[in-house]
Amino acid sequence: MSSSIRILEVGPRDGLQNERITIPTDAKIRFINNLAQAGLEEIEVTSFVSPKWVPQLSDAAYLVPSLPKGPKYSVLVPNLKGLERAIEVNVSRIAIFTAASEAFTQKNINMTIAQSLDVFEQIVLAFRKEQPDGWVRGYVSTAFECPYSGKVDHESVHNVVDRLLAMGVDEISIGDTTGVASPTEVRHLTRHLLQTIPITKLAYHFHDTHGTAIANTMSALDLGIRAFDSSAAGLGGCPYAPGAAGNLATEDLVYLLEREGLSTGINLDSLSKASIEVLAILGRHPVSKSQIAQFSASETSPK
Amino acid sequence: MSSSIRILEVGPRDGLQNERITIPTDAKIRFINNLAQAGLEEIEVTSFVSPKWVPQLSDAAYLVPSLPKGPKYSVLVPNLKGLERAIEVNVSRIAIFTAASEAFTQKNINMTIAQSLDVFEQIVLAFRKEQPDGWVRGYVSTAFECPYSGKVDHESVHNVVDRLLAMGVDEISIGDTTGVASPTEVRHLTRHLLQTIPITKLAYHFHDTHGTAIANTMSALDLGIRAFDSSAAGLGGCPYAPGAAGNLATEDLVYLLEREGLSTGINLDSLSKASIEVLAILGRHPVSKSQIAQFSASETSPK
Repeated sequence: MSSSIRILEVGPRDGLQNERITIPTDAKIRFINNLAQAGLEEIEVTSFVSPKWVPQLSDAAYLVPSLPKGPKYSVLVPNLKGLERAIEVNVSRIAIFTAASEAFTQKNINMTIAQSLDVFEQIVLAFRKEQPDGWVRGYVSTAFECPYSGKVDHESVHNVVDRLLAMGVDEISIGDTTGVASPTEVRHLTRHLLQTIPITKLAYHFHDTHGTAIANTMSALDLGIRAFDSSAAGLGGCPYAPGAAGNLATEDLVYLLEREGLSTGINLDSLSKASIEVLAILGRHPVSKSQIAQFSASETSPK
Repeated sequence: MSSSIRILEVGPRDGLQNERITIPTDAKIRFINNLAQAGLEEIEVTSFVSPKWVPQLSDAAYLVPSLPKGPKYSVLVPNLKGLERAIEVNVSRIAIFTAASEAFTQKNINMTIAQSLDVFEQIVLAFRKEQPDGWVRGYVSTAFECPYSGKVDHESVHNVVDRLLAMGVDEISIGDTTGVASPTEVRHLTRHLLQTIPITKLAYHFHDTHGTAIANTMSALDLGIRAFDSSAAGLGGCPYAPGAAGNLATEDLVYLLEREGLSTGINLDSLSKASIEVLAILGRHPVSKSQIAQFSASETSPK
């Protein structure tokens, strides 16, 4: 099994999108630059969603051209209108977002899964025409449980993944959107998907709502998965339970991976400092245990 | 493998011992009673340590006889003097505390490991004379890393466990005292110990300082370990990094176990309510992700 590991940092997009306070564009640029300096090589920086729906990310078209060169930046593209705006600023990596639960897709993007896949097929085709070497990732959320309809079966996830790969999506990120899954569920779903899907096509996107995200990551690592999404400082919260933890914190992920002997190239101290600045703007306390330990240990750890 | 699982709740002892504020005895009794009502069947309630060293637990001799009948209560006994005090109040379950790291044992209890084991042998003999059917558990802390001398090898842990079992200790709780271990380390140590030690003799005591405690629990569960220590609300902090997380929170442990299909008999809502009262007295915010989710979800989760 490969020892090379990829972290896709989603804090600036998935994190800030779910925070109530809008961060000034300059602070976002500084944040993204600090993340890059800390060693993050893949960062999802914004979404070309309608500013009416997500005012926190309404500066997308101004933000993207202002970013420092270096990391691979991706952006979320919800529809053809969003793709047009993304192409105008020469984006070469996009992400599209659907779900394995029919009820969630309806409530979240007001389409059936089938309709959303039809739209994505148009997006992918149009994007490839502009960026033949571009990269497309597909999010499949609610892969374990749906907040509206409960348990989601493996076949439903597998079918959506198959459709996305058939239309030429490069990587699929499987999401535990409500952060409820436990390691054995991750093992079962992963084994199901790996029956037909190449392991290099799969990433996981865990939420830490009930504190299982690191254990779930370990479960996927054990089966050879080598790509994980996370959000600096766990930015993002959980839209279904205000105050509760949302995305897996990049700090916790980096600690696990490094301690497991998988080199991430990320400096945990620099990363913790980068995200604490944003927490301060948001008026939020840190929730990542590794981030908290990072700050307290430097003062008082016995040596 | 057995599907029956044991949780040993250490919040009232290991938790409160490491908090700066001393909880009034009446509040402790209420807390322990609430834990019992929530379904916890084994609770370590206090330590018969010198009140000079741990004023937070100086009410031990008053607390123990005041507890409601029902759960199995245990107490920590650091020395023969402590044992005398414990026997006076008719304690039938005791715990003793040593470590796998020589440097830690010296700094923490001012003895070599060998000296501490000699003392424990006297304690166990004296205790058995008073309570022939009594139960003794032995803590082996710093089983992975020592805050003073770094990595601890498996042989050192194994030797201490062997000595404790040889003197008739009933259960050994292996501690990741600084909360640094990751799942593969837990797997390796567990496999090493299981070469000669019956699995029913082993428990784990994880700290969540870097967010790996639940993943480590899963690693031990996968190898068949069925006894875990935890502290309601993660009470206790980490004495080596103030502000950082300490003991694994019982709420997070219960969530994992139940989701893994291992019935704990514990009501997560009642447990969360029991410990939030104590957090309020301590002036602390909750840190257990399951506990936080428990409170936020009840208000806003879509159904």
